Amino acid sequence: MQVTKFAIPEVIFGNGSITYLASCAQRLGAKRVLLVSDKGLEESGWVRIIINLLKAANLDCIYFDGLTANPRACQIQQGAQLYRDHKADVIIGLGGGSPIDASKGIATIVSNGGEIHDYEGANRISRPLPPMILIPTTAGSGSDVSQYAIITDKKRKVKMAIISRSLVPNISIIDPDLLVTKPRELILASAVDALAHAIESYVSRLASPFTESQALTAIRLIAGNIKTAANSKDSEALKNLSIASTAAGMSFSNAGLGVGHSLAHSLGGRYDVTHGLTLPILLPSVVRFNKHCAERKMETIARTINNSCPAPMKQKKRDLSTILQSMFEELGIPMRLRDIVPDNDQMEEICRLAARDACTVTNPREADCQELMSICAEAW
Amino acid sequence: MQVTKFAIPEVIFGNGSITYLASCAQRLGAKRVLLVSDKGLEESGWVRIIINLLKAANLDCIYFDGLTANPRACQIQQGAQLYRDHKADVIIGLGGGSPIDASKGIATIVSNGGEIHDYEGANRISRPLPPMILIPTTAGSGSDVSQYAIITDKKRKVKMAIISRSLVPNISIIDPDLLVTKPRELILASAVDALAHAIESYVSRLASPFTESQALTAIRLIAGNIKTAANSKDSEALKNLSIASTAAGMSFSNAGLGVGHSLAHSLGGRYDVTHGLTLPILLPSVVRFNKHCAERKMETIARTINNSCPAPMKQKKRDLSTILQSMFEELGIPMRLRDIVPDNDQMEEICRLAARDACTVTNPREADCQELMSICAEAW
Repeated sequence: MQVTKFAIPEVIFGNGSITYLASCAQRLGAKRVLLVSDKGLEESGWVRIIINLLKAANLDCIYFDGLTANPRACQIQQGAQLYRDHKADVIIGLGGGSPIDASKGIATIVSNGGEIHDYEGANRISRPLPPMILIPTTAGSGSDVSQYAIITDKKRKVKMAIISRSLVPNISIIDPDLLVTKPRELILASAVDALAHAIESYVSRLASPFTESQALTAIRLIAGNIKTAANSKDSEALKNLSIASTAAGMSFSNAGLGVGHSLAHSLGGRYDVTHGLTLPILLPSVVRFNKHCAERKMETIARTINNSCPAPMKQKKRDLSTILQSMFEELGIPMRLRDIVPDNDQMEEICRLAARDACTVTNPREADCQELMSICAEAW
Repeated sequence: MQVTKFAIPEVIFGNGSITYLASCAQRLGAKRVLLVSDKGLEESGWVRIIINLLKAANLDCIYFDGLTANPRACQIQQGAQLYRDHKADVIIGLGGGSPIDASKGIATIVSNGGEIHDYEGANRISRPLPPMILIPTTAGSGSDVSQYAIITDKKRKVKMAIISRSLVPNISIIDPDLLVTKPRELILASAVDALAHAIESYVSRLASPFTESQALTAIRLIAGNIKTAANSKDSEALKNLSIASTAAGMSFSNAGLGVGHSLAHSLGGRYDVTHGLTLPILLPSVVRFNKHCAERKMETIARTINNSCPAPMKQKKRDLSTILQSMFEELGIPMRLRDIVPDNDQMEEICRLAARDACTVTNPREADCQELMSICAEAW
């Protein structure tokens, strides 16, 4: 470890923490707020609740409703235009990874101008962003605490990773009450995304003691709660997944990820499939690929999962990729790449892009296009 | 756990990280910096090095040299006056707990006016402080990442605890190279202070999974490195103590402390003794007092210390207070209160003040003046 950085937003966590929203916005100087969310949250009523909370504190609120899953460059421009037209002064993002990342993209364009693809890669944002409050509604992306934003470039068919400390919001309000409206598949997909964040960042080349402890907290909580949360929507289990997702976000935001996420970015850009679908399929093969470059750390992860799984899910295996494979199978998660993408004709191009992804740099083992193709072939 | 908050500064950690100082200051808009430090750091050459780093980046730097150990209210006023007279725009604090806390006090007065005792207690600071960069030179106080400042009130003979999220600086630069100039006693005193932060915050009523993981990281690293760092000033061991101090700071700043620190505040205010001297004496008795209110957590701490101590220091005991007592004795630390304070005539008044200290609120077991007197009598 040479010089390491650890930057996270102010985190306000707990059931009912959403009631602090207006006072947080006022503390950041808000008078006119731009709220970014999506259709699902409009339908479940949370967009209305948020608008009412802001109005009750005499805050003007403009709602941007132009988002789809996996936000696109043109939608970012529309959101930024709305912010400017209404002279907003604070951005509030409410949702899963998509509205959160869109909020970050909008904030970037508002103060830095240009197009969102101008900022692809690491440390390309030069001017400070307007104040941001992010409110996650899935326990997975960790984007509400991270310096990452993933935006889809439809032309090139890739998911762009934008990485900058400026993308860490001022405040993240994480209220587990917002998770109860989610279907089983989304709870699972979000939890395995968070698990992948924790595992990849724990073995990353940039891991530090500050990130490692958060990663292990996340792994322990996900292994211990994923089944109960998905099957019964038990509120204590959902809260624990929410803590885990936040801890995993603190870890990967500062330590970086690995080739599992590199591949998830390029597969997702090509086929519009989410991290929650691609990562459980890729992770066992990625773990096997990395095994000899992070042996002791893999053992620690395996021990942590074995000690945390509730009795009926108890893993007796010692090998981490086997443990992950059987955990995901038991949860009924699709485990073959061929089940989620239409063909493997473009795998070489997908892996070429993944080899150049920012996440490949921090993978514990160097990986070229050919090696990534082997990982995908194994997972096919 | 109801609603919990986790706020820390941006942390830049590692050997050589001090070279990032000027660019950090510029990022915060600095043109004219107020540097706060003390005689020891002038003599060891670090004040000169910092001034040169700032000058090389064309930053004007005013140095405030009016501090003693345990900063006093009048010194805070002098520092604030110097800041105003020179129209400074960023405060840099360099040192152990004293210059760091003085920097926070100066920042408070600069933007909020009044006297420092106006802000004693929790959440009394209303206006935002000027930007602050803190650079710790001891691996102990954790004040460079915390929302606490301890300032001595000479009139009342107490150490005032000022607690506010505003006191979390913008950036903490932690460079283990700055620790090598310290004598053995100071390395030990700082490490046991950090250990007390970690233990008290781990069992605090406000502990959360975000703080608990940092506290255990700190306990593991201190148990594993304190002896080597103190005896040989080994650079890897010193770096690990520095990581531990920072992790413990992240934990106690957000989870709070306990009656060990309440007593250290009032004893320190009365007799000008440091936390590093009082806490190892008090901690075994405090742990015994709290034992039945945090039994499983105490076992986890005991196991963590036992697993981390190097072989010659291996503790075979299971009881945490016994483990701590023998660890401190083996390090040659004074272990009786009578060895460090002149008399016990004023113990009742000291314990009455401690019972009202902000740290008593988060102690896992309620404690009144009589119970605190028993703790002191046991440690006498």
